[in-house]
Amino acid sequence: MKVGIIGATGYGGAEIMRIMKRHPYVDECILYSSRHQGTTYCKQYPHFVKLTKQTLEPIEVSQIVADIDFLFMAAPSGVCSRLIAEFEPYDIPVIDLSGDLRMKDATIYESWYHHAAPPQSALEKAVYGLSELNQEEIKVAKYIANPGCFPTATLLGLAPLIKNGLINESFLIIDAKTGVSGAGRKASIGTHFSEVNENLKIYKVNEHQHLPEIEQTIRYWNPVFQPITFSTHLVPMTRGIMATIYTELKTSMKTNELQTVFSDFYQNSYFIRVREVGQFPETKEVYGSNFCDIGISADERTNRVTVISVIDNLMKGAAGQAVQNFNMMNGWSETTGLDFAPIYP
Amino acid sequence: MKVGIIGATGYGGAEIMRIMKRHPYVDECILYSSRHQGTTYCKQYPHFVKLTKQTLEPIEVSQIVADIDFLFMAAPSGVCSRLIAEFEPYDIPVIDLSGDLRMKDATIYESWYHHAAPPQSALEKAVYGLSELNQEEIKVAKYIANPGCFPTATLLGLAPLIKNGLINESFLIIDAKTGVSGAGRKASIGTHFSEVNENLKIYKVNEHQHLPEIEQTIRYWNPVFQPITFSTHLVPMTRGIMATIYTELKTSMKTNELQTVFSDFYQNSYFIRVREVGQFPETKEVYGSNFCDIGISADERTNRVTVISVIDNLMKGAAGQAVQNFNMMNGWSETTGLDFAPIYP
Amino acid sequence: MKVGIIGATGYGGAEIMRIMKRHPYVDECILYSSRHQGTTYCKQYPHFVKLTKQTLEPIEVSQIVADIDFLFMAAPSGVCSRLIAEFEPYDIPVIDLSGDLRMKDATIYESWYHHAAPPQSALEKAVYGLSELNQEEIKVAKYIANPGCFPTATLLGLAPLIKNGLINESFLIIDAKTGVSGAGRKASIGTHFSEVNENLKIYKVNEHQHLPEIEQTIRYWNPVFQPITFSTHLVPMTRGIMATIYTELKTSMKTNELQTVFSDFYQNSYFIRVREVGQFPETKEVYGSNFCDIGISADERTNRVTVISVIDNLMKGAAGQAVQNFNMMNGWSETTGLDFAPIYP
Amino acid sequence: MKVGIIGATGYGGAEIMRIMKRHPYVDECILYSSRHQGTTYCKQYPHFVKLTKQTLEPIEVSQIVADIDFLFMAAPSGVCSRLIAEFEPYDIPVIDLSGDLRMKDATIYESWYHHAAPPQSALEKAVYGLSELNQEEIKVAKYIANPGCFPTATLLGLAPLIKNGLINESFLIIDAKTGVSGAGRKASIGTHFSEVNENLKIYKVNEHQHLPEIEQTIRYWNPVFQPITFSTHLVPMTRGIMATIYTELKTSMKTNELQTVFSDFYQNSYFIRVREVGQFPETKEVYGSNFCDIGISADERTNRVTVISVIDNLMKGAAGQAVQNFNMMNGWSETTGLDFAPIYP
Repeated sequence: MKVGIIGATGYGGAEIMRIMKRHPYVDECILYSSRHQGTTYCKQYPHFVKLTKQTLEPIEVSQIVADIDFLFMAAPSGVCSRLIAEFEPYDIPVIDLSGDLRMKDATIYESWYHHAAPPQSALEKAVYGLSELNQEEIKVAKYIANPGCFPTATLLGLAPLIKNGLINESFLIIDAKTGVSGAGRKASIGTHFSEVNENLKIYKVNEHQHLPEIEQTIRYWNPVFQPITFSTHLVPMTRGIMATIYTELKTSMKTNELQTVFSDFYQNSYFIRVREVGQFPETKEVYGSNFCDIGISADERTNRVTVISVIDNLMKGAAGQAVQNFNMMNGWSETTGLDFAPIYP
Repeated sequence: MKVGIIGATGYGGAEIMRIMKRHPYVDECILYSSRHQGTTYCKQYPHFVKLTKQTLEPIEVSQIVADIDFLFMAAPSGVCSRLIAEFEPYDIPVIDLSGDLRMKDATIYESWYHHAAPPQSALEKAVYGLSELNQEEIKVAKYIANPGCFPTATLLGLAPLIKNGLINESFLIIDAKTGVSGAGRKASIGTHFSEVNENLKIYKVNEHQHLPEIEQTIRYWNPVFQPITFSTHLVPMTRGIMATIYTELKTSMKTNELQTVFSDFYQNSYFIRVREVGQFPETKEVYGSNFCDIGISADERTNRVTVISVIDNLMKGAAGQAVQNFNMMNGWSETTGLDFAPIYP
Repeated sequence: MKVGIIGATGYGGAEIMRIMKRHPYVDECILYSSRHQGTTYCKQYPHFVKLTKQTLEPIEVSQIVADIDFLFMAAPSGVCSRLIAEFEPYDIPVIDLSGDLRMKDATIYESWYHHAAPPQSALEKAVYGLSELNQEEIKVAKYIANPGCFPTATLLGLAPLIKNGLINESFLIIDAKTGVSGAGRKASIGTHFSEVNENLKIYKVNEHQHLPEIEQTIRYWNPVFQPITFSTHLVPMTRGIMATIYTELKTSMKTNELQTVFSDFYQNSYFIRVREVGQFPETKEVYGSNFCDIGISADERTNRVTVISVIDNLMKGAAGQAVQNFNMMNGWSETTGLDFAPIYP
Repeated sequence: MKVGIIGATGYGGAEIMRIMKRHPYVDECILYSSRHQGTTYCKQYPHFVKLTKQTLEPIEVSQIVADIDFLFMAAPSGVCSRLIAEFEPYDIPVIDLSGDLRMKDATIYESWYHHAAPPQSALEKAVYGLSELNQEEIKVAKYIANPGCFPTATLLGLAPLIKNGLINESFLIIDAKTGVSGAGRKASIGTHFSEVNENLKIYKVNEHQHLPEIEQTIRYWNPVFQPITFSTHLVPMTRGIMATIYTELKTSMKTNELQTVFSDFYQNSYFIRVREVGQFPETKEVYGSNFCDIGISADERTNRVTVISVIDNLMKGAAGQAVQNFNMMNGWSETTGLDFAPIYP
């Protein structure tokens, strides 16, 4: 199989490329880039020296559909919105890693993303690619809206609680923290080393575009849910997301009971590692891998539960989950090409 | 004036020493250490070469009270508990930076700190040294229980809301993040560079000993308050604390109204910098200084408010606030020796 | 094949384990540890949750030789010295990652390592496992002295110059820099996060135990070489070594001529990536991989050449090269289980 | 006294501002910026909230000379070259922190800086502001070429050896390492957090513009000196420079003899801290201060000496040394406003 990557010069694209180097069913990766077309990929990313001799190709839809069997779009938000209509006449399956296909309601998309949504026809074809929760839909999807990094960590941490009806629908606070690579490769003062190193900041307070994405899925699971509080912090590290989730139990439960609920819920999900009681995951423990590790603590003093969910934002939060969906769409095991250990330390 | 520091080889002690080098009313700092007595301070901390020739003195109470006019105890928790009875017969004022004098109820102390509390007589003499809130008591105190780093950031962020009766007494969640220096200088696997760098972890979930300290003060302000949720995360940076505080408003307010409440509340507090609407403080913006910077965001969707409060854990969270209290106890301006800018970047 | 790892709880051991998880010819890894025997490996390294259920076994030689076909010793220096005599009666091949088997002259070993050398019989059986340079010896070796991290980067950067007789034998200065993981997992003040972060230090100036190891190999290639200068610096990062090598050309050469010398020299060496003229490798570009990347700059002003050689200290500088040697000893391709891309960013 | 800062929005300018807040003889700092004129300084640098209400003023020479008594130019290279002619008719003293006034030979400047040199008249008025070495000239200078960060660390480490005629004039290798703030505040891929963090790279190999600056001063001290080798590395930290200097002794000397040479040489230099034998400075030990700390190691095996010289690049390497020169030009003690301790950890 030949796959293509639009936006190959971004971090998400480079991570898909890293995975594809060891994917047993992918013969070739063709890389597309509007800004850097004509230069070699190794000039952009010298860590691929000797591993690829690819030159970056221009983004020409008719050529792309002729060249490849499957397309990953790993470009910034807005690119898929503009391009997807050109791909719709063709049969090619697409996984988009930006937020463009995620919101079912185009007006909500536009109010949080501040540019035009993709055509309604594309939105209707798109399945939300939260791999563990939407398996059947993903397997038959033409387009996948690959989930955002924060929503992935958050929703995987919430699903067992919500789907089992255990928590108060009007009490949900998510304090999320991310490494800097989530901001992409584009240089800016906000990601300048001297400003980020030895620093911690909160950003987009109550305004992050991943908020409606989380709410959309939560309400898809249970329409009764009230608006949530969702905050994002920038941590001086490159990779990793932690969502610290605070909610209230409908009826009192102990940590070990909740741990059993989570373990049962994810018993067939290879990439979800529910930790033992008293053990809480650290972001480095999933570094470079597709795992999502979850820890739980019930607090009897408050009848609240704290869920800690960590992922590598570029893997389970982007490229890794994209390949997991790609596997499912092609009828392969979800772990194909993804069953490697985190790198530690 | 001659001051002494017990536990001078810890980071809190070194930071007091740094401040004292420029304090106009302090003639001499005598440094005490049980572990390193007899060695020069510069051997422990070469950054003080040329700035001091002090040798570390043994901890002998009768000699200490003869040598100095004022004592800072910057030793780990448990040392003050053991030593304070020996100092009580003497007239010397003491500021303790550990948690030992903070809990008014010795049984609560013992259940969270897991060792014996100081004598009741010492606890009764101790004033909680949250400088901006307890000025009158601090001025006449003999002993100061210098607040913990997390409680300082948290309580300064909460005081205007609680004292003005604006928030729901049963809805308070504090997601706190700290740099690694808060763990002190003692080497351990949990503070080993290769384990902490490029990593984010949560620790002591629902079990941190600063939790009862926060609740004690909140209930001193308003006894109606219910148990709180308080989490602490370790961020790969040396200095800095951020408390992200989530609570619910009793009646709807806009961000600018809340900003005015905070600005008014702290109008005479030099070290509190309430940020403008839309601006949120970063930990690096207070690095090395005694400032506490606060940002506020009200969310109309949820009727909740997010307060962000940042400090340098070794300054306003330890040594800086200790010197601020020292100034007040001696009748000097609270800013004496502390009116320097943060270091950035 | 069953392999064993003594010292599995160290970083080198954990990295061998990570590689073995995807090695096609290894059925099982048995892990040995004197300190943690009886506990699960995942308790030590939660990033392996779901990937292994191994319990740490005690170090009992007769049991080890019964259990496994091949032994990696990844324990601190001194352990192999003490244990190897017990293994000598058996047929089991051993790769030792510590420095214990590297020095051919036991007295030199003892003067730099400050403890007793292994028995002479073991030293004689040991082949220095610099994979690219000693292939024929490695293939038939019983024992491998796996090279040190600094010597690996240095010697790979020097070999083309020395073996081609291009440089002044009395002018060799190596300024080496390492990430902190090279110091292992044992906590100490020198690897304490708050002391290492945002800091750069030099250590063991003119006293590092890797110095005689480098000289031994250089003189094995050309006995005329004079004593070298070798310095090591600790950089606030977890992984990565850079050796910046300064030497003098016997006759003037341009950078592109030297680049050709290097490219030709390493044309059959998969893991050595000689960079194009004007491009210099960064440590992150080999992160997590077994590559050694080399850049060269000749300076006409001084007739000196600067060689920059980078590796991941835990991979090509330890576990990766060990597995490369393991492959060669077993007659497999040297890249088996090691042909994965670096992780970037 | 009123001082002005052109280029106040850069890191060097901000650091001058930080120092001036506590300088006893400076009444006011007026800040000039072409890009951000009209906005408040606190908008650029929120860490100055409450410490200044300054608005950034436009760069209009006639207004500047009317407003202030002393000018710091902390703009990027090229700005001083263009502006200085406009200032020459006036009497105002200027300290320029860029490289523009440093090279006595305009053609050398232009070949390394790649743009036009300042007028010859200005170059002739400029004194090289290496504070400890050029005191008499600095005191009477109109213009100061404030030294580069790398040259400062390097030359202070070399002066006692060269001025005492102790080293081989054709053997000098400087391996320099810097934190990222030396690159200024302008965002670029080369200073992007995700690319710099957990990474080490060499840059401008044999091409750094500080090389001719170092050679110019060395040859001013001793014209016999041959071309030097000078390399620069980017370390994942914000502040700090270390120069590791390798040279050859003319006659054999022991470390303690050299330590005495250095101590004697700098006995009246407050800001130079020559370390004891066996102790080597770390960059963090001068963090935020104007100190330059020096360690020495003679190696009997090679008859070479290694000198380690560390500074804070924004302090002794830029703003701190500028203020030190400012003090000397005004007849004050060189330590005025600069006698504060490093911040550690």
